[in-house]
Amino acid sequence: MSNKIRIGIVGYGNIGKGVELALEQNPDIQLEAIFTRRNPKKLLTTSKVVHISEIESYKGKIDIMILCGGSATDLPRQTPEIAKMFNTIDSFDTHAKIPEYFNVLDDVTKNAGTISLISVGWDPGLFSLNRLLGQVVLKNGKDYTFWGKGVSQGHSDAIRRVEGVKDGVQYTVPIESAIEMIRTGKNTDFSAREKHERICYVVPEDDADLDYIKHEIINMPNYFSDYNTTVNFITEEELNKNHKGMPHGGFVIRTGVTGDGTKQRMEFSLKLDSNPEFTSCVILSYARAVYRLHKEGQTGARTVLDIPFSYLSPKSGEELRKELL
Amino acid sequence: MSNKIRIGIVGYGNIGKGVELALEQNPDIQLEAIFTRRNPKKLLTTSKVVHISEIESYKGKIDIMILCGGSATDLPRQTPEIAKMFNTIDSFDTHAKIPEYFNVLDDVTKNAGTISLISVGWDPGLFSLNRLLGQVVLKNGKDYTFWGKGVSQGHSDAIRRVEGVKDGVQYTVPIESAIEMIRTGKNTDFSAREKHERICYVVPEDDADLDYIKHEIINMPNYFSDYNTTVNFITEEELNKNHKGMPHGGFVIRTGVTGDGTKQRMEFSLKLDSNPEFTSCVILSYARAVYRLHKEGQTGARTVLDIPFSYLSPKSGEELRKELL
Repeated sequence: MSNKIRIGIVGYGNIGKGVELALEQNPDIQLEAIFTRRNPKKLLTTSKVVHISEIESYKGKIDIMILCGGSATDLPRQTPEIAKMFNTIDSFDTHAKIPEYFNVLDDVTKNAGTISLISVGWDPGLFSLNRLLGQVVLKNGKDYTFWGKGVSQGHSDAIRRVEGVKDGVQYTVPIESAIEMIRTGKNTDFSAREKHERICYVVPEDDADLDYIKHEIINMPNYFSDYNTTVNFITEEELNKNHKGMPHGGFVIRTGVTGDGTKQRMEFSLKLDSNPEFTSCVILSYARAVYRLHKEGQTGARTVLDIPFSYLSPKSGEELRKELL
Repeated sequence: MSNKIRIGIVGYGNIGKGVELALEQNPDIQLEAIFTRRNPKKLLTTSKVVHISEIESYKGKIDIMILCGGSATDLPRQTPEIAKMFNTIDSFDTHAKIPEYFNVLDDVTKNAGTISLISVGWDPGLFSLNRLLGQVVLKNGKDYTFWGKGVSQGHSDAIRRVEGVKDGVQYTVPIESAIEMIRTGKNTDFSAREKHERICYVVPEDDADLDYIKHEIINMPNYFSDYNTTVNFITEEELNKNHKGMPHGGFVIRTGVTGDGTKQRMEFSLKLDSNPEFTSCVILSYARAVYRLHKEGQTGARTVLDIPFSYLSPKSGEELRKELL
């Protein structure tokens, strides 16, 4: 009998694929099945694939379901249903709706005797942890979050909805001079435009009006009008060759003063060549914590803020103290 | 009746003074008394000062004792005694002896019904947390810790023991080119000499042999012989004016690959104009966690690896989820 943590993957998009890939590096975790709404035979994978309608029959056979659907519609509907039967982890990232989502799941899981760990990833996730740490340690200070350089899926989608655009990718780019100013300890308030710029690579349709496309993008409210935006027109070949990766990253910087005006600075940063692969590794680490909390008989909703780092590791407390402190 | 967390400070050196100073920024924590082995009347402070021999009479009146003595001899002797009567926090930093120290305190506190949180600060402490996070998330990778630019107390003491040296300060300086190489994702093994250099500011006695001093420092085994060391001779006035601060900081960098060779990087860094003031702020944040664990009825020894970040904040889980996730 195996002592491995048995997981299921629900949804086979970028994160689902990333979790499957990350299992190679995490031999204490074992994939039982991928659950999909699509025809299971159509998924390009050597893992076992099961239609989502059969998920209930895996009750007791899977320790944690990793929910890899989208935050807009999939997770708010799916997670409460699945959490009635299984412990869950997700990377729900609609920041404004996290409190409500948490409360719904807290009720469900306390009744069901399960654990739901929500919003696991890097933002929300590791960045949230660093914002909290900065605020408690340097009380008299300010924190700044910068994202990028990285592909924003939402902004890329917005570009592709403009008339005459065949395909497009948008990079969010943090403005180095703002980061440098913050690092000197000046507690500056920055506008959106002063913190990030937006760089777009656009493949136009054959007969498209390039000036129109550029104007529509640059002036698009909510997405681009508050930023300095650059639009580059490129060929489809170039886009597919150079812009189909999913790099991302960013910085959480806390500056503050202690005592009699002594300057102090904390900084956490990520540079990721693949956003979904990294997020998947974070999720698998936290899967260990869910497994352990469940073994302890705990129930309810949790976020990364509630989990000690020792719960992320397969090593014993004794090993961790010896090797890491 | 106050709902504040009542603390005592044991030992009034740099950390003890830093904790006292940090209370201004932490209004939910209240200092009951400073305990000292010296004559209480001789301490330059407006806080209440009590001789250490009277500590037992404060049982029940203080929630947590912050132990601010040295790791070499004070803490190994003091903490087990005090932990029989009070919850404790310390910043014990003799890395190699942490496992043994932990085990001693785990026994004492489980019998006494108290909590001892050990090795709180930034290294060990926040750096340990980041080493652990790096290792669990990027399994296939390597982490590097750099310290400085900052004053090393141990190396400064070593300089001052050289014949002909009146006073001296040693800065540990990370080598930028090594950090840059690591950031590119090369999993390089560095020698001690390639990671840090050591810069000494030395005030010689009036008739001292400068060549002898320089030779003795540069070739001193364990402390300097494995590093590129620079010795600068300066006047006492210059030393007192420019080198009596206690800046420090450093970097924990984890680089790794996920999936099919995708490069990923995590980095945590600190730039501190006062090492003891920052360490004191970390300690006070963790005092909240000790208070809360004790209220929950928990007992035993703990390290920062065992504490969820939400326990460091006076805010509720609901507030934290709303503001930080």
